[in-house]
Amino acid sequence: MPELRQDPLSREWIVIAKERAKRPHEMKKKREIEHRPPHDGACPFCEGNEGMTPPEKFAFRQNLPNTPGWLVRVVPNKFAALVPRGDLTRRHQEGFFRSTDGVGHHEVIIETPRHDLDFATMDDDQVERVIFAYRQRYRELRQDPRVEDIIIFCNHGLAAGTSLIHGHSQLIATPVVPNLIRERLESSINYYDDTGRRLLSDILDKELEVGSRIADQYADFVAFHPFAPRQPFETWIMSHKAQSSFGNISDDECRQFAHIMKRALYRLYIGLNDPDFNFVIHTAPVRDENQQYYAWHLQILPRISTPAGFEIGSGMSINTSLPEETAEFMRSIEVPETAAAT
Amino acid sequence: MPELRQDPLSREWIVIAKERAKRPHEMKKKREIEHRPPHDGACPFCEGNEGMTPPEKFAFRQNLPNTPGWLVRVVPNKFAALVPRGDLTRRHQEGFFRSTDGVGHHEVIIETPRHDLDFATMDDDQVERVIFAYRQRYRELRQDPRVEDIIIFCNHGLAAGTSLIHGHSQLIATPVVPNLIRERLESSINYYDDTGRRLLSDILDKELEVGSRIADQYADFVAFHPFAPRQPFETWIMSHKAQSSFGNISDDECRQFAHIMKRALYRLYIGLNDPDFNFVIHTAPVRDENQQYYAWHLQILPRISTPAGFEIGSGMSINTSLPEETAEFMRSIEVPETAAAT
Repeated sequence: MPELRQDPLSREWIVIAKERAKRPHEMKKKREIEHRPPHDGACPFCEGNEGMTPPEKFAFRQNLPNTPGWLVRVVPNKFAALVPRGDLTRRHQEGFFRSTDGVGHHEVIIETPRHDLDFATMDDDQVERVIFAYRQRYRELRQDPRVEDIIIFCNHGLAAGTSLIHGHSQLIATPVVPNLIRERLESSINYYDDTGRRLLSDILDKELEVGSRIADQYADFVAFHPFAPRQPFETWIMSHKAQSSFGNISDDECRQFAHIMKRALYRLYIGLNDPDFNFVIHTAPVRDENQQYYAWHLQILPRISTPAGFEIGSGMSINTSLPEETAEFMRSIEVPETAAAT
Repeated sequence: MPELRQDPLSREWIVIAKERAKRPHEMKKKREIEHRPPHDGACPFCEGNEGMTPPEKFAFRQNLPNTPGWLVRVVPNKFAALVPRGDLTRRHQEGFFRSTDGVGHHEVIIETPRHDLDFATMDDDQVERVIFAYRQRYRELRQDPRVEDIIIFCNHGLAAGTSLIHGHSQLIATPVVPNLIRERLESSINYYDDTGRRLLSDILDKELEVGSRIADQYADFVAFHPFAPRQPFETWIMSHKAQSSFGNISDDECRQFAHIMKRALYRLYIGLNDPDFNFVIHTAPVRDENQQYYAWHLQILPRISTPAGFEIGSGMSINTSLPEETAEFMRSIEVPETAAAT
């Protein structure tokens, strides 16, 4: 008998198709893991090719900008979806539709100078630097009064929508609060008004109490497969120290978060054979950073199944896996101390 | 300068990335159109293989069920996401999360007995039969008191999430109103309360007044590329005779709708080289069928770009096309009288 489960945050219903469910190991990618050379002369993100990107905004380096010798490098997206100029007045276009200039920021965080490494295969220190770079850019851009929301995300692999294979994440700062984020905030506010508690903290507490969907724990952080996952192996990472904004996390939290995120991505890499995935940091809008009803968290979504007409048309999803089983599978994968796959 | 446009129905903001915009013809699929044989002995949807599916629910035929000789055939999905039995009481699972049995219906509408035809290549009469079959199944299933919402959709091509290539659509009847549909209803209700008018009718009237995004008109129906499309070539088809429910359309409207839908899919087939696409009939929930604030419509979404971390994390989309240009491109493609591509 299939089961309908409701995600308490999005309030959307998910079909857990138990009869059609695949065992976790069946979702392993069939093709071999592709090993890339450490350097590619044509890749704009490789060390030595700094001239192929716009001038950098930030880097972990001890030398001159836009030269080799960096560890993490942040540059404006050459094909930016939003640009830091223009007029933010909402217009009534054609006397009816609402529009505004595409004002904002669109940056690329190059995660490593090496062409052959990803989160799963780089060392922990490097993952930490990436998280510090995320936070640095977040903190810089939230000061722009035009920015309402900052979305940090990673597209890994062709099926996840990336065009460049060299490990990179992106940041888009928008001049509007996306409706999807507004809705999640609203369900959190309603819950807070009803119960006096933080919805996401109660979700985390319940997951810990139940236990079967917990994939990992490290210091203040927990990785779990949510009760109502949209896709197989959907993973959320949250801190016990709930706070609304990713931008406000401490240095220690950056390090802890880097470590548990890296472990989750390593296990996906080993367990599912380097699957394509997206991850996104869900955080409160910039002007809601100090509210107490939200909690920032990471969502990792492997691209194992293809959302089709039903998902697009209803917002519901059909998930052919059980989070209780996928979490158990993840727990069973050993992560070496260095957590590097090479 | 990129532009942000708001979809008045979903209230979501779309980035129209003008600088990155591709011309319509650049989005044409590179590979050749794949021609299939008229019959495949291993295909469960081919005529003669009726024993390979569960017993049929409905068919256009003059002879015995589950034998050859049909024109359109409807069967339960062998791997049904929802099943017509179980308990619909909402449970509090683990004392916190909401769940219920996966009660509902999941059917497959086999659009033609022939393995080699699709909407773009079958004749108009056949498309009409498919629409009549959609309506027949809708009307039958809405009588089940457990059903709250009925989603009719088509996944065409591998990138659109189909696993079987033989032309088929699907219907899923859910025992909950999906949150995504509730939101669209709510924005329509708010608009109705504020203005006394139907939001979707005002959208259609404005599109007709502006004209540049109209792709086609036939009898009471209009096909247009919306002001804020999520994806290149997103197409909406609506009737001047707005009514909330697809289930209530007349025979005449079925025929008109079939004709304009076929023309739109034919033009995508010719113009973009048989792109993968999803379409979905957006209609009011079963218990809102007689309200006057909604209007059923078809949304066609070619799978030309891949939604990635930004889209998943924010609900916003980056669209690298202008609907004014894609609509013009569509208008320029001639549709033969018979509207069959073979």
